[in-house]
Amino acid sequence: MELRREQLIHKGKANNVFSTNAGDILELEASDRISAGNGERRDVIEGKGVVNNVISMYCFKLLEKNGIKTHFISEGSNECSKFVKKLDMIMLEVINRRYTAGSFCERFGCEAGVEIVPSGVEFSLKSDELGDPFIPKFAIKALGIATEEEIQYMEETTAKVSDILSEYFDSLGVRLIDFKIEFGRDMDGNIVIGDEISPDTCRLVDKVTGEKFDKDLFRQNLGGVGEAYRKILERVKG
Amino acid sequence: MELRREQLIHKGKANNVFSTNAGDILELEASDRISAGNGERRDVIEGKGVVNNVISMYCFKLLEKNGIKTHFISEGSNECSKFVKKLDMIMLEVINRRYTAGSFCERFGCEAGVEIVPSGVEFSLKSDELGDPFIPKFAIKALGIATEEEIQYMEETTAKVSDILSEYFDSLGVRLIDFKIEFGRDMDGNIVIGDEISPDTCRLVDKVTGEKFDKDLFRQNLGGVGEAYRKILERVKG
Repeated sequence: MELRREQLIHKGKANNVFSTNAGDILELEASDRISAGNGERRDVIEGKGVVNNVISMYCFKLLEKNGIKTHFISEGSNECSKFVKKLDMIMLEVINRRYTAGSFCERFGCEAGVEIVPSGVEFSLKSDELGDPFIPKFAIKALGIATEEEIQYMEETTAKVSDILSEYFDSLGVRLIDFKIEFGRDMDGNIVIGDEISPDTCRLVDKVTGEKFDKDLFRQNLGGVGEAYRKILERVKG
Repeated sequence: MELRREQLIHKGKANNVFSTNAGDILELEASDRISAGNGERRDVIEGKGVVNNVISMYCFKLLEKNGIKTHFISEGSNECSKFVKKLDMIMLEVINRRYTAGSFCERFGCEAGVEIVPSGVEFSLKSDELGDPFIPKFAIKALGIATEEEIQYMEETTAKVSDILSEYFDSLGVRLIDFKIEFGRDMDGNIVIGDEISPDTCRLVDKVTGEKFDKDLFRQNLGGVGEAYRKILERVKG
């Protein structure tokens, strides 16, 4: 059956979600919208949707090749979109840190750029209202968000994803500093990676020059976001 | 050698610390000072120091009897104080939660009074400046605050302490909701429990009536703090 986009069913901060002619499949479209500070600052970066979608699809294919289940099915109906399995999303952001950066340094008053070995995984509760608070594993279980086995699976899988993506970006001369992924349950109850893996969700810097290729440019109001996203896309494509 | 108090070497938010005639021993005096909101609200509750010291000494003795090492040596030179081992404190608050309450409910938007089985342990970095942020275990290690083995010891010990204290308070008709303890390294490098275990650091409520016997009365400005502390002391003494 050829997959066809049907209706827009959700407009997120950066992505649009469409139903398709298959009940258990969605089309996920990366838009050019960008936001920071829980949606407080917003802008549009021309071409960002394409970059994020191409990089995201590349990363999902790479993970699948390494035996890690994701929601990715196939390329979508335009260059900003992909067909994905419909998931019941788990309301967590799973964060992996390979080097200290960003909110980690602000929280703990430490300097940026210190390597964390082995990389560390932490969870935050996905809730704009509550400010995405960091949540300990016992609380994820106590609040009925995921079982102990699911939490362990997400934690171990995220550490594996980190090593796979880090090795890949390293081969492009890029250092993976940290990233967040999200998981969901598919129709069969399996936990798979959903959402996206892109410069919106990863910190990526040139290994030699330290040049930034990610959303930090927008968060810190440094400018050059579109150009940086195009540069990282060139490396992924090249 | 008879221990003798010498000089005041530290005046904390609630406790005074004195040197003694033994280099590796301190005298810890519980004052009547009370504070909340990182010291923003302050008051004096007459008799609180005695209550906290007597309960704290009782709990430390109980833990020692159960094979858990603490800094407690002996009763002090007055009814508000005790002699303790000098420790190099680990800058963490180790929190154990048996029921949802307080900041846990605010952070995660959940209701209070839900039992957490098994009880959950979380760490926060002791830093007024940073607002005592919750800290994941990998970050404790990455920031050089404690080793992996030390973190595991603190986590396991806190869970044991929770079960011992809960069983004890239960026998007095009191439910232990949550508590925080602090650890330090003694002269031999062993990790032992320091600081205090008192109604300032535990949430304690009557099992039947729900009456509060702890610092929540002050945090929530409900009044009757002194009376509640005296009531819990009577149960401990009786």
